[in-house]
Amino acid sequence: MAKNKENNELMEKIVSLCKRRGFVFPSSEIYGGFSAIYDFGPYGVELSNNIKKEWWKAMVQIREDVVGLDSAIFMHPKIWEASGHVSGFSDPLAECKKCHSRVRVDHLLEEIGINADEKMGLEEINKIFEENKGKIKCPSCGKDEFTDVKKFNLLVKSNLGNFTEDWNKEPIYLRGETCQGIYVNFKNVLDSTRMKIPFGIAQIGKAFRNEITARQFIFRTREFEQMEMQYFTNPDEEMKEYEKLREYRWNFYLSLGIKEENLKWHKHENLVFYAKEAYDIEYNYPFGFSELEGVHARGDYDLTQHSKYSGKDLSYLDQSNNQKYMPHIIESSVGTARTFLAVLCDAYTEEKTGDDTRMVLKIDKKLAPVKIAIFPLLRNKPELVRKAKEVYDNLKSQFMCEFDDNGNIGKRYRRQDEIGTPYCLTVDFDSLEKGDVTIRNRDDMKQERIKIDNLMEYFKDNLS
Amino acid sequence: MAKNKENNELMEKIVSLCKRRGFVFPSSEIYGGFSAIYDFGPYGVELSNNIKKEWWKAMVQIREDVVGLDSAIFMHPKIWEASGHVSGFSDPLAECKKCHSRVRVDHLLEEIGINADEKMGLEEINKIFEENKGKIKCPSCGKDEFTDVKKFNLLVKSNLGNFTEDWNKEPIYLRGETCQGIYVNFKNVLDSTRMKIPFGIAQIGKAFRNEITARQFIFRTREFEQMEMQYFTNPDEEMKEYEKLREYRWNFYLSLGIKEENLKWHKHENLVFYAKEAYDIEYNYPFGFSELEGVHARGDYDLTQHSKYSGKDLSYLDQSNNQKYMPHIIESSVGTARTFLAVLCDAYTEEKTGDDTRMVLKIDKKLAPVKIAIFPLLRNKPELVRKAKEVYDNLKSQFMCEFDDNGNIGKRYRRQDEIGTPYCLTVDFDSLEKGDVTIRNRDDMKQERIKIDNLMEYFKDNLS
Repeated sequence: MAKNKENNELMEKIVSLCKRRGFVFPSSEIYGGFSAIYDFGPYGVELSNNIKKEWWKAMVQIREDVVGLDSAIFMHPKIWEASGHVSGFSDPLAECKKCHSRVRVDHLLEEIGINADEKMGLEEINKIFEENKGKIKCPSCGKDEFTDVKKFNLLVKSNLGNFTEDWNKEPIYLRGETCQGIYVNFKNVLDSTRMKIPFGIAQIGKAFRNEITARQFIFRTREFEQMEMQYFTNPDEEMKEYEKLREYRWNFYLSLGIKEENLKWHKHENLVFYAKEAYDIEYNYPFGFSELEGVHARGDYDLTQHSKYSGKDLSYLDQSNNQKYMPHIIESSVGTARTFLAVLCDAYTEEKTGDDTRMVLKIDKKLAPVKIAIFPLLRNKPELVRKAKEVYDNLKSQFMCEFDDNGNIGKRYRRQDEIGTPYCLTVDFDSLEKGDVTIRNRDDMKQERIKIDNLMEYFKDNLS
Repeated sequence: MAKNKENNELMEKIVSLCKRRGFVFPSSEIYGGFSAIYDFGPYGVELSNNIKKEWWKAMVQIREDVVGLDSAIFMHPKIWEASGHVSGFSDPLAECKKCHSRVRVDHLLEEIGINADEKMGLEEINKIFEENKGKIKCPSCGKDEFTDVKKFNLLVKSNLGNFTEDWNKEPIYLRGETCQGIYVNFKNVLDSTRMKIPFGIAQIGKAFRNEITARQFIFRTREFEQMEMQYFTNPDEEMKEYEKLREYRWNFYLSLGIKEENLKWHKHENLVFYAKEAYDIEYNYPFGFSELEGVHARGDYDLTQHSKYSGKDLSYLDQSNNQKYMPHIIESSVGTARTFLAVLCDAYTEEKTGDDTRMVLKIDKKLAPVKIAIFPLLRNKPELVRKAKEVYDNLKSQFMCEFDDNGNIGKRYRRQDEIGTPYCLTVDFDSLEKGDVTIRNRDDMKQERIKIDNLMEYFKDNLS
């Protein structure tokens, strides 16, 4: 209970920091907000970009066996039939007869101890729902009268490219996951590159789902960004490659400085029929261990379905032994915002010294939104400001830097600590005479003097 | 005419290169393609990412007066009323009575020499259309019978967050331009940063428009990515800042290695009522000079509208002189894909030597999808392959590299020339003895020997 309170407080502190320092803003705030959507502010977009850069480096740049892709959000609607999303990607919803709010029936049943399986038909759910009438209350108004349960598809529909009025009959979907764009480009990649199985295709992009309950800040939102790598394997080697991928992905989070005790594997017990094995990497968020990434062995389902629905044979001919087979796919799939939130939670630190509390984001240097802050000791001494600007102008060509001459140095350190800036440089009167500056380290607050002429080399060694 | 033919050929060559070498694939190709949407393949995504990185560096990283943002695609629908898009962002369409294809009436009128002004009402357009009946033929079937002209809104509609069936009544729009996300976050940025006017907010993101005629490859598509910077100024300084921004943006393209003779300014003659001045930077595409970027002075329209519609006062108080005003906005807005296409057209080179033609992409090193290709001279000599892999493994930690041991060295050079790789390294028998490799320069094809131990430093000097 005490632990819960502490965790709620941590979540509140992070949400508040995000707003106050420009990491995350609620969407359309001046219009009263909008639909569990969030915008990334000035520091947020830098953090988010740095996360994506590190992911791309780990998943594409340093891997000879993986290439990148950036497929569009919109695709042929038949793709979503082939994938099973049109028929199967839905939540059971009912409407409260009193307040007309819509509720997730599976969640309400779960709360009274009934597990409503994904595969359960509508009739069966309705029956259970009816049997438990009275026990189930509307979360908004407390009443226990609901309409019949209906399935609501999670794919977001649009009228893209449809110039009639009744486009609802043939909706064009926004993608519900980015991986379908990879599957349908499998052959294009094979034909235009020299890749041979096993190989992977990686991409970062947005996906959309009509979740009725978006919640926990940026953890679950209707618009979200995925970083996915789909790896095509020989069926005989699927599970061997799967184990390698699991290890690789675990180590990725350690390389971002995430504390290993805050990560754990969660094995899926109820697999979808085609899956071989599925594990999630969970992070210990303030609201409990929850999915950060999925690492799943998907068998040959995806390419088989797209072969069937497109009429194009997507099987692979291994020219070294003339073996022909439908590739099996293992995937790594993670949300940018979930990584973002895990990184913030993991880095958030309060250090007490006597009555004073220092709030510092001990974020990995690679991810820090600002790498170096440059201060003139006093803002009203033009020669200090000039020299500090000179240092700033030189370093900013290579690193994200910030110039700050506002308030005393202590306050400026605190401002940078809050956003996780690893290095602060102060230009003082000695700098003008001796050509050196004070460099202050975020984590241990130690200071040293360093020659201005050596700064670029120092940071190239310490930041790249 | 000869020039036209040459240009059509160039366009065909570029489209073909894009497909063959994995820069751009038509979306959903195995399903017969989809709706003028394109996917970026392995080299395309690298080029596109490099363009965005250079834009971000020029517009955010090295500018003390600009911060970044990443606002969501979905926003409060009232924002699109405030911006004027719901009432005014539409094309006049009619339907051919014979083949039922939809036509842009303004385009058809233009073809017979009639300028259908944007501000023209529906009644007036219908009258002109009727008067010219017989002269106007359907571009698809040649017949001259059409339905009445209707205005069709370009905003793409969706059912995001709407769990009813009749969501068409209150559609949620996909954003038609990214800048609205900047305007509505103006106050959030002011409140969470130390920015003071003049300052800018920059962002890169997707936007969507229901264009009836998407065309010219990736030049005009219904889903597209914008790179925009909106700069907030004191009304008295709007035009001074505007001139600075125009110069800055022009120089940006030169810094990407675009030939200056392929760029020109186009001044808008018919300004929308609130605009002060509007220029486009046009690039000389194979289909003629066309808009690459817009640099527009928008006055106080945007913040005034959002103040009115949101009920939140977005005026700015200058604390240095207690002056209060509605900021005026100047904007720079460019499409990633238009820059991508301009870069490819500008870099595409054929060099004839006797009967032989070398196709080479003379693309700026900063933008090249692959920076360094590493070859073992012979693939069947394990000691060469091993040494080449060692070099590759070392360099790939810092640069996008490619390993290639397929075919003779000449062929490998050609493959890299086609995708614009600035440097090729060959590991030969001398490398094993003397520890140096041949480095071959893309543009002049000159070769030199360089010590393996010095490669990292060499490329850090030449590529960062």
